[in-house]
Amino acid sequence: MAKELTSRSENYSQWYQDLVIKADLAENSAVRGCMVIKPYGYAIWEKMQAELDRMFKETGHVNAYFPLFIPKSFFSKEADHVEGFAKECAVVTHYRLKNDEENGGVVVDPDAKLEEELIVRPTSETIIWNTYKNWIQSYRDLPILVNQWANVVRWEMRTRLFLRTAEFLWQEGHTAHATKDEAIEETEKIINVYADFAENFMAVPVVKGLKSANERFAGALETYSIEALMQDGKALQSGTSHFLGQNFAKAFDVTFATKEGKEDYVWATSWGVSTRLMGALIMAHSDDNGLVLPPKLAPYQVVIVPIYRKEEQLAEITEKVDEIIAKLKAKGISVKYDDRDTRKPGWKFAEYELKGVPVRLAMGPRDLENGTVEVARRDNLTKEVTSLDNIDEYVENLLEDIQQNIFKKAYDFRAENTRKADTWEEFKEILTTKGGFISAHWDGTPETEDLIKNETKATIRCMPLEYEEEEGKCIYSGKPSKRRVLFALAY
Amino acid sequence: MAKELTSRSENYSQWYQDLVIKADLAENSAVRGCMVIKPYGYAIWEKMQAELDRMFKETGHVNAYFPLFIPKSFFSKEADHVEGFAKECAVVTHYRLKNDEENGGVVVDPDAKLEEELIVRPTSETIIWNTYKNWIQSYRDLPILVNQWANVVRWEMRTRLFLRTAEFLWQEGHTAHATKDEAIEETEKIINVYADFAENFMAVPVVKGLKSANERFAGALETYSIEALMQDGKALQSGTSHFLGQNFAKAFDVTFATKEGKEDYVWATSWGVSTRLMGALIMAHSDDNGLVLPPKLAPYQVVIVPIYRKEEQLAEITEKVDEIIAKLKAKGISVKYDDRDTRKPGWKFAEYELKGVPVRLAMGPRDLENGTVEVARRDNLTKEVTSLDNIDEYVENLLEDIQQNIFKKAYDFRAENTRKADTWEEFKEILTTKGGFISAHWDGTPETEDLIKNETKATIRCMPLEYEEEEGKCIYSGKPSKRRVLFALAY
Repeated sequence: MAKELTSRSENYSQWYQDLVIKADLAENSAVRGCMVIKPYGYAIWEKMQAELDRMFKETGHVNAYFPLFIPKSFFSKEADHVEGFAKECAVVTHYRLKNDEENGGVVVDPDAKLEEELIVRPTSETIIWNTYKNWIQSYRDLPILVNQWANVVRWEMRTRLFLRTAEFLWQEGHTAHATKDEAIEETEKIINVYADFAENFMAVPVVKGLKSANERFAGALETYSIEALMQDGKALQSGTSHFLGQNFAKAFDVTFATKEGKEDYVWATSWGVSTRLMGALIMAHSDDNGLVLPPKLAPYQVVIVPIYRKEEQLAEITEKVDEIIAKLKAKGISVKYDDRDTRKPGWKFAEYELKGVPVRLAMGPRDLENGTVEVARRDNLTKEVTSLDNIDEYVENLLEDIQQNIFKKAYDFRAENTRKADTWEEFKEILTTKGGFISAHWDGTPETEDLIKNETKATIRCMPLEYEEEEGKCIYSGKPSKRRVLFALAY
Repeated sequence: MAKELTSRSENYSQWYQDLVIKADLAENSAVRGCMVIKPYGYAIWEKMQAELDRMFKETGHVNAYFPLFIPKSFFSKEADHVEGFAKECAVVTHYRLKNDEENGGVVVDPDAKLEEELIVRPTSETIIWNTYKNWIQSYRDLPILVNQWANVVRWEMRTRLFLRTAEFLWQEGHTAHATKDEAIEETEKIINVYADFAENFMAVPVVKGLKSANERFAGALETYSIEALMQDGKALQSGTSHFLGQNFAKAFDVTFATKEGKEDYVWATSWGVSTRLMGALIMAHSDDNGLVLPPKLAPYQVVIVPIYRKEEQLAEITEKVDEIIAKLKAKGISVKYDDRDTRKPGWKFAEYELKGVPVRLAMGPRDLENGTVEVARRDNLTKEVTSLDNIDEYVENLLEDIQQNIFKKAYDFRAENTRKADTWEEFKEILTTKGGFISAHWDGTPETEDLIKNETKATIRCMPLEYEEEEGKCIYSGKPSKRRVLFALAY
């Protein structure tokens, strides 16, 4: 078969790359580090967007849109922020091209230089807080609960489709509050929305936690993240929610009159998930045959393939298939009928396995006689022949079962690959031989975290929100510690 | 009232600007020519997007995403195309900032210069056709029916909120076909989709037609447009669909094996509508009191305002209002209940008039006693008191009636403001005293069109697809002509 993948055991990284390309999800473009998201990949992203957007709106948020460009001077106003992003900024310096035959044709017009350079947004805190300054005078103007769906650019040197690209698509929430407590509550509300989405739609179990100071967002006082575990034992940060304190309000001088008639700086949060989630979705569930998609995010949940030798058989099969499609659609199930005569059933089976379609129905002349259909599920590659009576309920239950099963498989994998380490030797051994999450004591200092990272490449993924107090000693420094944190190698 | 608008008769342009800002639709940003689309404005755009996206999918299209940046060399491959866009291109030349205290802090790092400059896409034909080259080998790979929702940048010198901005949001369809006929059919299919959307959702009547050579898209063989008439008698081009022939296929060497085993260049179309539609929507219907929104695109179709003096009356009213809301929602009608105690009913009435909410319900103690509610419609500012029995059906019918009425008003306005001119004097007189569409004979040459434009600023908006053959003489040159075309001053 032309579309065979490298196996995961042979080369996990190559398997991922093969899969993204051969399943028609995305490809590299002619622009360094920028990807083309192909229709099948984009259809999954659209499903993600629709669910997330619904969840944001249900929690009181509205959408808006802010400029792509940020004046360089704005960008520099919050010191940590510019420090964090300066090294990966695409900069617009001119606004016109001109024809110059002597210099090889179309060139940038040197007379069209911008007075102030513009940064292509890597994230929008600065332009948004500059705008909020005009929106906020009094506590009556608060809270502002705004989200934006947008593209952003971070000029990364090493890129990988979906996981790290120079341009990516994301949503970024930017909220403004009258009190610290309310801002923290918002930050936590959103990390719960992200976890809910990851677990109940993507079927990817995640750990919610706080980032250590080293791994915090540039400009945040506290960063919450959800961390998922991939099949190669590496962690993938899948969403972050930042409590920004009054940093951006101070940088952009955004104050408000409080209920008590005083003047105070506004409290802020920001939070985002991106097309990186596509990487998490692909890597968490898929196998050597291709994608495995959770039914709730599959572009089509069911594909139907007719099996026939003679043209007149196809007409009879199609008649019956049309009835099935009508029944499935009435249940809100999305279906594709692939009756192309240019491809054989075996080719189609492999194709839809590669594309991760959750349920495949195949119908041949014998099924017609018997009133049956062959049902294959993608997640565990099992098949059975079932009666056409109540096929709609049968498939509906099956899709629900597949959704649960995919989650359970990932959950069990994570459970098996989350280990405690109590000594430095143990830590290193688990890391090099098994990978996965390592729950260990840490002395709480950035210095120790750096030393561990330098020696092993492992980082603190998060300090889980759910934990037990436990006296212990830092695996590296031996200093006292009151709780374990979660280490891993990470994407 | 603080939010009073300039009247249309006083200064139409200022009225528009006031309205966009005071109705919280959009505002200018700190970045020259770029706007912030505020939540209320964005909610209307989201409704537009949802309907258009549904229509594109129903006609067989899928979404995808291509890079924001276009290498300068790609951009230059199609001669007319680069000629058309070169003067308004934002150019990325560097990819890093650095701290340089001697030169005033954060500066562009001169060592981080790109080898080849990147253009921020003003439209995506070039990057997309460079991609399609790899997607298309045989007729089996065709057609490709792809749409993209994206931001684009055109460095316009004179900008106006929604109507002409340096960055705007749009959709751009890019399709690839095996035959010329099929590509033309696609171009026409889309202009019909756009007209359907404009008339049946935006309630804006449009003329479908072909652009003259002067007004064609840079790189197209034929441009179809829909043209709407604003209340000041100026036309607004609201959507375009281009038949690109084989121009881009030739520029990017995209060939395919035909069914007959030959090699041919692929045929192309592209088509787009943008946030400019927001400008059309606002200008077509609104009045001196504010926005008038067609119910099908209103963020909320109904607002309910309680009228009360004592706190305990509010509780009773709210109980009854909750019943109404439940009934309306069951009909798929969107409702906002504004029970804020910080604003008086009169203030709220003016606010929702300004924001163009199609139907306002007001309920006071007497309504409670009588089982009635006051219903006000935004389009004609009439009110009546009606029984609460069947209020859901009443409102449902009313919304439909408002949608029709808004369209009819705009349709009648256009009919009254479309005039025939048979002499140059007549043409100039209509143009200067009345404006509107002028249907006149033209000799078909770009030269005459230019002369008319230079003398009057009027342009040929389109050669309507529906027309009668009629012998006549060009109003300017006196040369023979077989049909009338549509002139107007335009946005």
